[in-house]
Amino acid sequence: MTEEWETKITKVTPNELLIRGYPLDELIGSITFASGIFLIIRGELPSLREEKVIDAILVSSIDHGVTAPSAVAARTVASCGVPITTAMGTGILAIGDYHGGAGEKCFKFLKETLQKKKNDQSLQNLVATVVQAAREQKIRIPGFGHRYHTQDPRTMKLLKIADQEKISGVYVNLAQLIAKELSYQSQKSLPLNVDGAIGAILADMGFEASTAKAFFAISRIAGLTAHILEEYTQRPVRTIIPSEAKYTGNPKRNLA
Amino acid sequence: MTEEWETKITKVTPNELLIRGYPLDELIGSITFASGIFLIIRGELPSLREEKVIDAILVSSIDHGVTAPSAVAARTVASCGVPITTAMGTGILAIGDYHGGAGEKCFKFLKETLQKKKNDQSLQNLVATVVQAAREQKIRIPGFGHRYHTQDPRTMKLLKIADQEKISGVYVNLAQLIAKELSYQSQKSLPLNVDGAIGAILADMGFEASTAKAFFAISRIAGLTAHILEEYTQRPVRTIIPSEAKYTGNPKRNLA
Amino acid sequence: MTEEWETKITKVTPNELLIRGYPLDELIGSITFASGIFLIIRGELPSLREEKVIDAILVSSIDHGVTAPSAVAARTVASCGVPITTAMGTGILAIGDYHGGAGEKCFKFLKETLQKKKNDQSLQNLVATVVQAAREQKIRIPGFGHRYHTQDPRTMKLLKIADQEKISGVYVNLAQLIAKELSYQSQKSLPLNVDGAIGAILADMGFEASTAKAFFAISRIAGLTAHILEEYTQRPVRTIIPSEAKYTGNPKRNLA
Amino acid sequence: MTEEWETKITKVTPNELLIRGYPLDELIGSITFASGIFLIIRGELPSLREEKVIDAILVSSIDHGVTAPSAVAARTVASCGVPITTAMGTGILAIGDYHGGAGEKCFKFLKETLQKKKNDQSLQNLVATVVQAAREQKIRIPGFGHRYHTQDPRTMKLLKIADQEKISGVYVNLAQLIAKELSYQSQKSLPLNVDGAIGAILADMGFEASTAKAFFAISRIAGLTAHILEEYTQRPVRTIIPSEAKYTGNPKRNLA
Repeated sequence: MTEEWETKITKVTPNELLIRGYPLDELIGSITFASGIFLIIRGELPSLREEKVIDAILVSSIDHGVTAPSAVAARTVASCGVPITTAMGTGILAIGDYHGGAGEKCFKFLKETLQKKKNDQSLQNLVATVVQAAREQKIRIPGFGHRYHTQDPRTMKLLKIADQEKISGVYVNLAQLIAKELSYQSQKSLPLNVDGAIGAILADMGFEASTAKAFFAISRIAGLTAHILEEYTQRPVRTIIPSEAKYTGNPKRNLA
Repeated sequence: MTEEWETKITKVTPNELLIRGYPLDELIGSITFASGIFLIIRGELPSLREEKVIDAILVSSIDHGVTAPSAVAARTVASCGVPITTAMGTGILAIGDYHGGAGEKCFKFLKETLQKKKNDQSLQNLVATVVQAAREQKIRIPGFGHRYHTQDPRTMKLLKIADQEKISGVYVNLAQLIAKELSYQSQKSLPLNVDGAIGAILADMGFEASTAKAFFAISRIAGLTAHILEEYTQRPVRTIIPSEAKYTGNPKRNLA
Repeated sequence: MTEEWETKITKVTPNELLIRGYPLDELIGSITFASGIFLIIRGELPSLREEKVIDAILVSSIDHGVTAPSAVAARTVASCGVPITTAMGTGILAIGDYHGGAGEKCFKFLKETLQKKKNDQSLQNLVATVVQAAREQKIRIPGFGHRYHTQDPRTMKLLKIADQEKISGVYVNLAQLIAKELSYQSQKSLPLNVDGAIGAILADMGFEASTAKAFFAISRIAGLTAHILEEYTQRPVRTIIPSEAKYTGNPKRNLA
Repeated sequence: MTEEWETKITKVTPNELLIRGYPLDELIGSITFASGIFLIIRGELPSLREEKVIDAILVSSIDHGVTAPSAVAARTVASCGVPITTAMGTGILAIGDYHGGAGEKCFKFLKETLQKKKNDQSLQNLVATVVQAAREQKIRIPGFGHRYHTQDPRTMKLLKIADQEKISGVYVNLAQLIAKELSYQSQKSLPLNVDGAIGAILADMGFEASTAKAFFAISRIAGLTAHILEEYTQRPVRTIIPSEAKYTGNPKRNLA
């Protein structure tokens, strides 16, 4: 017998599609795309407050310019003469532990940190201990600081909306205490970055950790599409001029 | 000198990100994700009517169950123990000429058909000629009929919204005339399918043809994410039982 | 300044290509493809014995039928109407921890096991301890046993060649002691499988662990190509019939 | 009933694998990887002459330095923290019409050209006509000239081996006549390039056109692997410095 394909997501019968139970034609025109994304991943429609925050998260990661590695990869591949979906898929493949991955790692770090909290311990004391331990072991806490922005405008706006919509909870609180403590102990500004903020907010919303990378990818595919369409208007084959590469390998030699 | 990376999409400077000119932190919380997608691809924010239609398009393609080839590919790859973004990218790679590709082909067909119209020719006469020619050459007009649904509920709802929002124009009209003529000449129901409807609507909105495949991919990545997360809860390595495959090749032989 | 691209692999100047120092036109016609693969990855040409073993490894993983998950993914994507390289890339993406990944994990396990060996401890005693610990913690040692083959003909042939060519060393020896001990302690046959054998042989050849997955992929891309070409001769869009999927989600419900 | 998976490539039964009929364990140690590649794609083992030429083709495309777009894409993605097979797959996705794709296009052009030959027409006359027509329509004949090398050492060596092994036939001959005519009519050197040579040789060997791209990918995956392993030794996240990108889009503006 062939592998069985069992699913709780979508029921397909002739002339009817149920998405998490709802007829798709009822959803079309009634809900926003952000609500649809929330529904299909979580199984239930978002509240208005949740919808507002998911929209904010999805808008916040939509693009980071032509120099982001996913844009570089997608445009390079697009310039080689492949279909638009091959180039879009390539951009998604570039999202990994070091690009769009800090949200998932921050999410997990916050969960693990909270689990370490002893009954009579204050959150502030927990944070001080955890930050000190990380500094002593020279471990970089994921989700704090940014290689390019010192005060990321996206983070501040996202956190403001999560607060306003009463979505912020223990994980956002914990993340902000860590940011403060990190800056205090290291004597340099290491604010929560946009990926970290998204990780903390998704944790407070009850998502699982891997969705942080997934929401980043769902958001960024829009920016990647724009980049690929722009690349298609340019001359084919984006390459670095060979003379620009620095060769540090074996000098010329001949076969014996 | 290295290849120059020039772009009209996003400007990145320290602590400021401009998306098509707008500060990203201003957009967060102010616009929906669907508007953000429209903005980054088109360069301008959508009108309220355009936003409504884009949301409808994006919701309409969000999933077609576990048996769609992109879901099969994404889940199969996810079951092999790869990161979520590798599996998401794989699903996008499956979107091609025969899966999610009919929208782009229908879009192009409608454009080409309209260009053939002679000054004194009625649209109805044009359509009759084109359908007859396709039937004589046994060419299947892309975007009509569905292998599984005879009356696709998504199509009817999408077209209703496009009409209500006054987005439907010459291409939607042309597509519906073709559907009627196809059914008349072939004596069987060949209605506009969901991909065809999206192609026609995007043509009326002024997008370019390849965006039909792109919008399908942007929408479907949400469903693929749900499928991959569901797959991760199951036992690894989805394979067909080898005895199920039918071998029709060379009988056993030995090296000389 | 733009990211510098520094490399020890290939030097490109007008009308001259040096692969690890050797002029490429000298290599063409003088070395086999397997030697070329060894050279470009390792930096030096293989000995005749090494070449023989690398050829054996590369032939051994060339295909495992239409039912392997990488073949399922590649053929499914190919059937959607994408270019051959998009489908080939898809097949490679399916190679992960649970498909073609046991070689790398076995390689690492063997290295770690040997590092645990105390000075006065016999290899046999080390193996007995390690196997017992794994069984107590219900950890499956990677590279032993196969879901389908009980006596994998590939493994026996590979190990025979590695022995004949005097490539087998401490890691192959260790792997075989583990197999014997596993079968003894569990009272069922858990022989070294083909991935495990390749991991052990590559360890003895001085490669690094991640090359086990890479050699699998380099080998399997040949089989994937054959599958994709075969798929292109068939009717487009490979899907599972929707009625075959088992829906276990929410019953039908309507929007409030 | 679920889609049937029928295949002529590999038969898998417990403890036996037949590749195109041959027991895989018999092939291991008896044939080279290049022969295995030929066998699985063509269905029959190569002659010694065919094997020599396939090895030459596979060695010739093994790498073109860090600046080739497939290497740029694969290394960029690898630097983002993804598994080795995700990065290898990405490199393969970059192989398209404008990168590694000239062989397939040249192959098709040669086939189409020969089909146009009238019974009493000399090959030289056919070539003169075809080259003139292409020049008048400003169509670039695929497979001739190289953006970087004026005298590609790979091409000359490949053609020499194909001649020596008596593999060169009508298509190699035709390709060389076209190169001569192109240079004569355009008064500049437009020699057959390496992709064109491979296309012509594969045509003479009886392969189908799409295998030109496939052989390029099978060969290049070795170089890509070396590049990815090298990239893993470097600092994560390869990006272009944002200030290097040139923004030519909308000036800053605010939401209404």
